[in-house]
Amino acid sequence: MRIARRMGDIAPFRVMEILGRARAMEAQGRDVVHLEIGEPDFVSPQPVIDAAHQALHSGFTHYTPAVGLSSLRETLADYYRRQFGESVDPRRILVTPGASGALQLVLGVLVDPGDRVLHTDPGYPCNRHLVSLFGGVPVPLAVSAATDYGVTESALSAAMTDGATALMLASPANPTGNLIPLDHLRVLNRLLCEHENAVLICDEIYQGLQYDCPAQTALSLHAENVVVINSFSKFFGMTGWRVGWVVVPDALVEPMERLAQNLFLAAPTLAQHAALAAFSESGMEILEARRQAFQARRDYLYSAIGELGFVVGPKPAGAFYLYADASRFTDDSLAFCQQLLESAGVAITPGHDFGRHRAAQHVRFAYTTGQERLELGIERLRRFVTAGGD
Amino acid sequence: MRIARRMGDIAPFRVMEILGRARAMEAQGRDVVHLEIGEPDFVSPQPVIDAAHQALHSGFTHYTPAVGLSSLRETLADYYRRQFGESVDPRRILVTPGASGALQLVLGVLVDPGDRVLHTDPGYPCNRHLVSLFGGVPVPLAVSAATDYGVTESALSAAMTDGATALMLASPANPTGNLIPLDHLRVLNRLLCEHENAVLICDEIYQGLQYDCPAQTALSLHAENVVVINSFSKFFGMTGWRVGWVVVPDALVEPMERLAQNLFLAAPTLAQHAALAAFSESGMEILEARRQAFQARRDYLYSAIGELGFVVGPKPAGAFYLYADASRFTDDSLAFCQQLLESAGVAITPGHDFGRHRAAQHVRFAYTTGQERLELGIERLRRFVTAGGD
Repeated sequence: MRIARRMGDIAPFRVMEILGRARAMEAQGRDVVHLEIGEPDFVSPQPVIDAAHQALHSGFTHYTPAVGLSSLRETLADYYRRQFGESVDPRRILVTPGASGALQLVLGVLVDPGDRVLHTDPGYPCNRHLVSLFGGVPVPLAVSAATDYGVTESALSAAMTDGATALMLASPANPTGNLIPLDHLRVLNRLLCEHENAVLICDEIYQGLQYDCPAQTALSLHAENVVVINSFSKFFGMTGWRVGWVVVPDALVEPMERLAQNLFLAAPTLAQHAALAAFSESGMEILEARRQAFQARRDYLYSAIGELGFVVGPKPAGAFYLYADASRFTDDSLAFCQQLLESAGVAITPGHDFGRHRAAQHVRFAYTTGQERLELGIERLRRFVTAGGD
Repeated sequence: MRIARRMGDIAPFRVMEILGRARAMEAQGRDVVHLEIGEPDFVSPQPVIDAAHQALHSGFTHYTPAVGLSSLRETLADYYRRQFGESVDPRRILVTPGASGALQLVLGVLVDPGDRVLHTDPGYPCNRHLVSLFGGVPVPLAVSAATDYGVTESALSAAMTDGATALMLASPANPTGNLIPLDHLRVLNRLLCEHENAVLICDEIYQGLQYDCPAQTALSLHAENVVVINSFSKFFGMTGWRVGWVVVPDALVEPMERLAQNLFLAAPTLAQHAALAAFSESGMEILEARRQAFQARRDYLYSAIGELGFVVGPKPAGAFYLYADASRFTDDSLAFCQQLLESAGVAITPGHDFGRHRAAQHVRFAYTTGQERLELGIERLRRFVTAGGD
């Protein structure tokens, strides 16, 4: 059977292989410390669970509109108003099956075959894959700890000389945990508007998981060319529910609704009703406590891996990842991760999942497990790198 | 903002406009009989609801594997064994976010830009739109009541002279409700294999909603080039949960898993746990009772619209639709549907949603509402066409 050529551009996730191997080891009785998984360890907040029970009792099992429940779109608009002081017409907010659904809508509506879409390397792997899926050309912009993993003006200008349909950025970012200061985002977006009138696609799915400064949104740029992608998966702790959203300029609402009808009909109904409860007072209290727990984990892990010789650069201010230069130990991070798992029972993710720029020298640590397990992981890691250094 | 060219190939669903207008009329106090909606009116079966409560209590709110819960894949394999006597390796069954997710995976993995994909006209609208989305060329095969809406050997042969990557069929079909006898499917598939080794993509999402003969599956062809798409939405009554599945040849499992990770990560977790309960004895009893209710509605509606002068052809044996030639009343079915809604408060779907072949002469009736409402709808329809005929 002939497979479409685009599949040659879509790499498997190494993290899934690591996770799969870890699960197999666990099935054989081995203990594994999971520092590879990109989802919060916490179960969804109780008010969310309660709201789902209630929705079941109410028999809410039919389709919602393709763009989501009106009540959820209005609640999201209200969230932008209360949290960020931004007024957003609920009509511009489309509820999607996870940020994945949002990403598909955005790229499907914007990217023609051959269009260049700029993205950071390292960055979220699905970005470049979905650009390829629609026949676009993903153009990596190498970023490094030296610039706090930010795209510089000069790098963006240089990349745009050959044209660009869109620039994809994330703040906080996966895998680096870094933020893009709003002022810098404004400067970059000015370049996009001046040269090309390209679209700025901002992934804010880790919004709220921020530790040293208040959360922000690219909507505060008040620019006509900005699309914001978000999700209930990370800060709101609702991964398995598959619900996210996208905020788009007016001109994109109609085509995106049309595409949504074809791509997925609608986001899951229960998930949408449950998500409403995440914004309740008790919901937000639970999420704030979790944010603080993530912050404490970050502080511990950042120091601990630094002491072992992994180099992270400035302490990342968001998400739940540390992206570390492991070149003191390896120039083959994939083999390093495999050996670390097999011989020490610690699962982390090789840089390869996030791009090509010095991927073989980097690994990602996710602090999506509790303090005790983190400490056990660090102890095992210490023994592993010490033994390896002998 | 520049919109991708592919959006020019993706038509809006007229049924959503009709539904939207109907909802607006209802908001103003008008009563509307809904015969346009393509989802069962029943709430999901109680065992499904109960299983979802249980999953919530168990804290099952995290991601599942991209290809779905092992238990659900095994249960589906068991279903094929018990219901159809077919042995299917669970590895070949991938759980997806609705049949929509399955359709995306299949076309994404199989269709290169420029590839011809044959489909029936009339047929499910997303088919041709998703082919366009991936740069493929949808090639309509006109079907009519004269051949029981089946594709003939000669039509298929003629269409294949210019090449074909795949043929998309549905049984039972939307909008016609017709089945493809397994023997005829075998003949068509032999043509596909002989000429081109093209893939046969069989949409079986209405499987189980069959009234005059036992349910069947294209897996009974035992052919290496057959892909089967299915869903919990229709027979199982779980539209809003967004869970379906696809059965593929071995060679497609790995690339489809890879694409699933990028397109949607996984189907909703709660929905997968809930779906398991649909196969319970009590679940299947409820579904059988509903199937009988649909059958009674079909029998009523088929006679009633026939008496009014709509021409359906032989009584369709599946799904919950009647596709009727309305040329005695109109040669502009879109205007007819709009007028019927505005002046008589009955919502039906114009043929335009399903293709171009005599679309302006056809309308679709969905019997997704109870007997009393059906009778009210018929009474209003009678008055409307009588008045129009004066």
